[in-house]
Amino acid sequence: MLTYNLKGKNKYYTLYSLIRDDILCGKLKRGERLPSKRALAEELSVSVVTVQTAYEQLIAEGYIYSAERNGYFVAEVNADFYGKREISLPPEEREKKFAVDFVNGARTELFPFSVWARLMRKVLSDCGEHLLERVPCSGDAELRRAVASYLYRARAIDVEPRYVVIGAGAEYLYGIIVQLLGRDKVFAVENPGHGKISATYRLNGARCAYIGVNEEGVCCDEVEQSGANVLHVSPSHQFPTGAVIPVSGRARLISWANSCGGYIIEDDYDSEFRLVGKPLQCAYSLCSDRVIYMNTFSKSLAPSMRMGYMVLPPKLYEKYLKVFGHSACAVPLFEQKTLAAMLDGGYFERHISRLKNYYRALRQAALEKAANLGVRCTVIAPGSGLHMLLQFPDAPSDGYIKERAAKAGLNLKCVSDYLLAPAPVPERCAVINYSGVSLEQINAINVLK
Amino acid sequence: MLTYNLKGKNKYYTLYSLIRDDILCGKLKRGERLPSKRALAEELSVSVVTVQTAYEQLIAEGYIYSAERNGYFVAEVNADFYGKREISLPPEEREKKFAVDFVNGARTELFPFSVWARLMRKVLSDCGEHLLERVPCSGDAELRRAVASYLYRARAIDVEPRYVVIGAGAEYLYGIIVQLLGRDKVFAVENPGHGKISATYRLNGARCAYIGVNEEGVCCDEVEQSGANVLHVSPSHQFPTGAVIPVSGRARLISWANSCGGYIIEDDYDSEFRLVGKPLQCAYSLCSDRVIYMNTFSKSLAPSMRMGYMVLPPKLYEKYLKVFGHSACAVPLFEQKTLAAMLDGGYFERHISRLKNYYRALRQAALEKAANLGVRCTVIAPGSGLHMLLQFPDAPSDGYIKERAAKAGLNLKCVSDYLLAPAPVPERCAVINYSGVSLEQINAINVLK
Repeated sequence: MLTYNLKGKNKYYTLYSLIRDDILCGKLKRGERLPSKRALAEELSVSVVTVQTAYEQLIAEGYIYSAERNGYFVAEVNADFYGKREISLPPEEREKKFAVDFVNGARTELFPFSVWARLMRKVLSDCGEHLLERVPCSGDAELRRAVASYLYRARAIDVEPRYVVIGAGAEYLYGIIVQLLGRDKVFAVENPGHGKISATYRLNGARCAYIGVNEEGVCCDEVEQSGANVLHVSPSHQFPTGAVIPVSGRARLISWANSCGGYIIEDDYDSEFRLVGKPLQCAYSLCSDRVIYMNTFSKSLAPSMRMGYMVLPPKLYEKYLKVFGHSACAVPLFEQKTLAAMLDGGYFERHISRLKNYYRALRQAALEKAANLGVRCTVIAPGSGLHMLLQFPDAPSDGYIKERAAKAGLNLKCVSDYLLAPAPVPERCAVINYSGVSLEQINAINVLK
Repeated sequence: MLTYNLKGKNKYYTLYSLIRDDILCGKLKRGERLPSKRALAEELSVSVVTVQTAYEQLIAEGYIYSAERNGYFVAEVNADFYGKREISLPPEEREKKFAVDFVNGARTELFPFSVWARLMRKVLSDCGEHLLERVPCSGDAELRRAVASYLYRARAIDVEPRYVVIGAGAEYLYGIIVQLLGRDKVFAVENPGHGKISATYRLNGARCAYIGVNEEGVCCDEVEQSGANVLHVSPSHQFPTGAVIPVSGRARLISWANSCGGYIIEDDYDSEFRLVGKPLQCAYSLCSDRVIYMNTFSKSLAPSMRMGYMVLPPKLYEKYLKVFGHSACAVPLFEQKTLAAMLDGGYFERHISRLKNYYRALRQAALEKAANLGVRCTVIAPGSGLHMLLQFPDAPSDGYIKERAAKAGLNLKCVSDYLLAPAPVPERCAVINYSGVSLEQINAINVLK
């Protein structure tokens, strides 16, 4: 007779698990007859119902079967692998931290948290259970309208709200674009550039072409000769070189897209942070049929805010609806409604203007620090957004610059570190991304000569 | 001399835009000299600074250039396409609505909204600005721990929290899996089944193999012969047939995965809603090295809650960190913290148990309604979760069943509608998915004979 120790309140489940484990490890063998419900109940001092419920669960899962008027039998299971598990080392999830990080990170101290929290509370009580409703694939209509009207105010783009698509961050949207345009397309990306962009396209199964960058942004000749169908570009502020594509270059790229039926993805990721003059006019407003405008709130609001948006050309939007019309939007409605309230209330623009003042001060401090390093150093791309370049003509190599910086507790990269394929780039040129550092950190930097 | 009407407060921007548009449409031609700043300022009755700022913006964008001591000239732009835009028809975003929908939808009335709102407010004040921090690729540590401990309580799976990955819904996670396992892999899916699953794999560039389903779930012979490397399966409750894979079948599938180095994706989407007995033991607990366990909160909480999770085998998790380690999690931290509080506080399980009672009543009402239709009708898969099958042996065809239903305001599909490739399926068999209907709706159904 089977003997089990059934303690605790959930006796039937304990009994079920014990019998199950005995079958899995081979202690109870195929075809073996189990005791009758009554006999086992008596043996274990539990009710017949307990045994019956355990047997029913075992039958439902295929561990045992009942033969009418004949009892219960162990079924054939063949789980030879059971109990043999691979052992693996715990992976390391954290990276080494530097005192001052000029590569990664974003500051959240300036985020208007109290406004955000107040708007969240308001959305929670205003919308109530509507917040549980399924959000259509393109996002909440209210947020799409708020984004369109923000784009009109801030970027002077005249966008119909229905062509705005909300997504869970920029990388998420890159994936959507690959699915929309097709994996057979070649995606041209800026070289040097953000490795994450081409990595995301490649992860999504698309091929990439790497286009050199000069003072006027991506090299148009290379784009035309690349055989690419799609060009991912930041016309207003290339990363890391800071180059701006002049309108003649934009026009040429649009002609290229028109002639090959391709698309330009205008990644406007830090246009809000142009510290000199107004943000530059975007390529989208030159030609909304061939340009996919794209931006994210991760840089401008907070890194945990995985929200980005794109504006699709009308024909592409129709295709988007065909492909994704039955999917739900991946961003929770709650965040969408809160962001809409933030945009409509003007809080977002006030936040951006505060951030700009702050970054201006950071940039100034970094420039002063650079001027007092005691080594020759040239600033490149002074009108840029969240980063600038410092070229050290007397440094022996890029490696030397990074090594010296690391000794002073600074994490930084050089322009050459952003090369995705071999290409000529400015040498001995450090990329100072100040979006993740504080004024105090910059002022405290002490590079030993 | 240029004459423009500069009204409003932002004079420099208006001037900039007007000159820009004149250049774009060809009114101002390449090489043409612009008036001096002073002369234009006088002509337009604005300050010299206004004109200078407008000119600087035009220079920055490449519309004009300045020749030292010689003045400002229109640059070469070549925007021939400017002003020519495609016109497209407004796409239709809404679908036709039925009175009672047995195909789509989920009920949100039972969602414990006041608890959720209370937890949200608590998270907001407890976590404060921490909510703005970047969330690591696998999700918030607190939620991953809460999910692991929920899985232990509810599904008797012993999972290490670090192998839990949080994602923005099930489809999002399917995409991650394709990127992780590789687009060269063949994904086997259940046929008939949810078209969305294979559609998502295909959209992500993977090939699919379609595996027939019988009373014991997916046909193991077909899996073995399919050449597939990955099998996506719902062992505890196949949709739409309701079949359960017995433990012998699960063991055979795991042996298959072991022998070919493949993976089983255990989609446990409605295991919480098994209305008879405990949820069935999951395949993951048989072999955590070859099974990716996956579930979503969209069904159990609310459709707007785009949150799903998967438990990766240790080796695959290491690879996941390598590929996605530098990405951020796509679910906002705020929702993650709130859900963690909901799981840890036992609110989620109380909600599920309320839902189960409700669905039991719905199922009962649907069964009674079916019994009183006045036509012969058999119920298939009575222990199932959120749907059941009604077979009408005397109906002339599947089309006839759907047509009669539509006349009574019911949206329903037959099992054959879920075929992804030709295969034998039960005919004249309606799929009654009652997750989106109310008791009142079922009771009010009046099918004319």
